[in-house]
Amino acid sequence: MIKREPKPLLITMGDPSGIGPEITWKAWEALRSHNDLTFAVLASPDVLKACAGPGQSIIIIDNPADAGAHFSDSLPVIPVDGQAARPGYPDVMHATAITQSIERAVSLCLSRQADGLITNPIAKSVLYEAGFSFPGHTEYLGSLCEGHDAPYAPGPVMMLAAPDAGQADFRVALTTIHIAISTVPSALTQRAVMAAAQTALGALRIDFGIEDPRLAVCGLNPHAGENNALGNEETDVINPVCAHLRDQGHLITDALPADTLFHKDARSTYDGVLAMYHDQGLIPVKMLDFHKGVNITLGLPIVRTSPDHGTAFNIAGQGVARADSLIEAIRTARRIADCRYG
Amino acid sequence: MIKREPKPLLITMGDPSGIGPEITWKAWEALRSHNDLTFAVLASPDVLKACAGPGQSIIIIDNPADAGAHFSDSLPVIPVDGQAARPGYPDVMHATAITQSIERAVSLCLSRQADGLITNPIAKSVLYEAGFSFPGHTEYLGSLCEGHDAPYAPGPVMMLAAPDAGQADFRVALTTIHIAISTVPSALTQRAVMAAAQTALGALRIDFGIEDPRLAVCGLNPHAGENNALGNEETDVINPVCAHLRDQGHLITDALPADTLFHKDARSTYDGVLAMYHDQGLIPVKMLDFHKGVNITLGLPIVRTSPDHGTAFNIAGQGVARADSLIEAIRTARRIADCRYG
Repeated sequence: MIKREPKPLLITMGDPSGIGPEITWKAWEALRSHNDLTFAVLASPDVLKACAGPGQSIIIIDNPADAGAHFSDSLPVIPVDGQAARPGYPDVMHATAITQSIERAVSLCLSRQADGLITNPIAKSVLYEAGFSFPGHTEYLGSLCEGHDAPYAPGPVMMLAAPDAGQADFRVALTTIHIAISTVPSALTQRAVMAAAQTALGALRIDFGIEDPRLAVCGLNPHAGENNALGNEETDVINPVCAHLRDQGHLITDALPADTLFHKDARSTYDGVLAMYHDQGLIPVKMLDFHKGVNITLGLPIVRTSPDHGTAFNIAGQGVARADSLIEAIRTARRIADCRYG
Repeated sequence: MIKREPKPLLITMGDPSGIGPEITWKAWEALRSHNDLTFAVLASPDVLKACAGPGQSIIIIDNPADAGAHFSDSLPVIPVDGQAARPGYPDVMHATAITQSIERAVSLCLSRQADGLITNPIAKSVLYEAGFSFPGHTEYLGSLCEGHDAPYAPGPVMMLAAPDAGQADFRVALTTIHIAISTVPSALTQRAVMAAAQTALGALRIDFGIEDPRLAVCGLNPHAGENNALGNEETDVINPVCAHLRDQGHLITDALPADTLFHKDARSTYDGVLAMYHDQGLIPVKMLDFHKGVNITLGLPIVRTSPDHGTAFNIAGQGVARADSLIEAIRTARRIADCRYG
């Protein structure tokens, strides 16, 4: 069997006034000797040149396929029109360059000239000023991918992953994300739980290469409702979905008490967790490895990861930003692409 | 200055069909050489004799003060009427002995014949059958202590603590506990947040000996509401309470995003956390140390801790139950009593 020749990954510019440009340089420096992790950046060349260190240079390319030949010497850049930015001072004048970087990267992934996409952080408020109308990065990507089949349905679902010493990465998919806690119970419909569970199971199989993935499901309430004494969402909403998926042959639990689901011994009993709300999933991820958490969008027709942090305008340009999460996002995108396309 | 002579601690029997009796023996075996951790058990002697190991004996005493003379040789028992139990088979016939053990222990603590109380797990369903009408252990203790002044108000508040390698214990107090998530937002009144915050601050000062304790406060919503984009409880309820307490000179934060509050670096910035709901506080405690978590009731006129697990009827009598949490609960009660009374 001939192994497929992997294609490069793409990194978007993100907000050029944030830490994106400097962590991109740090990630390239850390990975330039790793041919298997070749990437190109879609950015305004001036943005990257402005924060290049001594001996660091960019190489302008048109085609992702050209990245590999230069990657160990220079940072490959697919140029996007735009101006140099002032670190720490976000400006709406960069909005077009920010969105064009994302749109071009998605397009290159959809046409399979690149294997996946790692997005640098954006600040929604900056884009909103320029007329951007999506609640976030993920929804924007979902829209850009419309009309293209994903390898598993229904997505998009947000997953967070972090390295877990001595065992496989810890992975948690979220049923609800950026909504107030008071609205979580009504958002937890059987349809929503089913969509998230099916997407998580599909991702564990296709993107993470686990033949019969084991998915553990969090309850919403303390003690997973304790037989309806502390809430009914487990018996009324979550467990019927889990039972249905088990009937289809999936290895999925009923709703389990979330507090006893994340210690080391528990983590070895599953390949992924489905959390019901943001903090329930993100507290364990960030406790496990605060710096190396990676955000993965499941269920898209393209591979997409991102670092699990924001633009960090407050420290941009000072050289102190850590690239750990971006580097881990690059490695994760590579592993997913190899599973999905390999 | 003459150091106060510490008084013994008391351990209640808990449900005799659960793991309480066997972990009590294990704790005594582990601690019998530690004079400073002397305790007596309030239990039916037959219950303890039935699961004594080779060479393990009890000594019947009437007065907690007599425990110290025997502690290294025999398990001191203050007898409570009751029968031997069948491990794994809870029976309502034990209800009276269970509650009498608790009532006597509370009375001995209130009269300062003992320094504090560690409660073995009970099963509410068993007690309900016998007419017990409290939602749980903590409320029962609160009722038994009525009319006695606590050293700080208003309590009772549940705190969970766990050892945290290389730094002080990790401690989290809960604003709401055993209620459905759908009812948490309405339960989070300014009065409730104030009561929990004041109690936590009082406990950190008086029970944990921290002169100017730093209390970190969790938001309810993702990203602590992100400036009201994801919920209003932070700005409407939590932050005004925090501002009021800061005006009074307390070191207390505003509501912070809970997901970034529990990793190692963050934990070193505070002496305790106030969580808004059960899983928000218990997920981090149980991730940090699953076996050594301790439940502490703050704001009572007596010192009370308990292991952070239930009766575990399913493994009772098999000798496999771990006493780590009970042992840690004993150590914690001792440290609190030494701070409070020392």
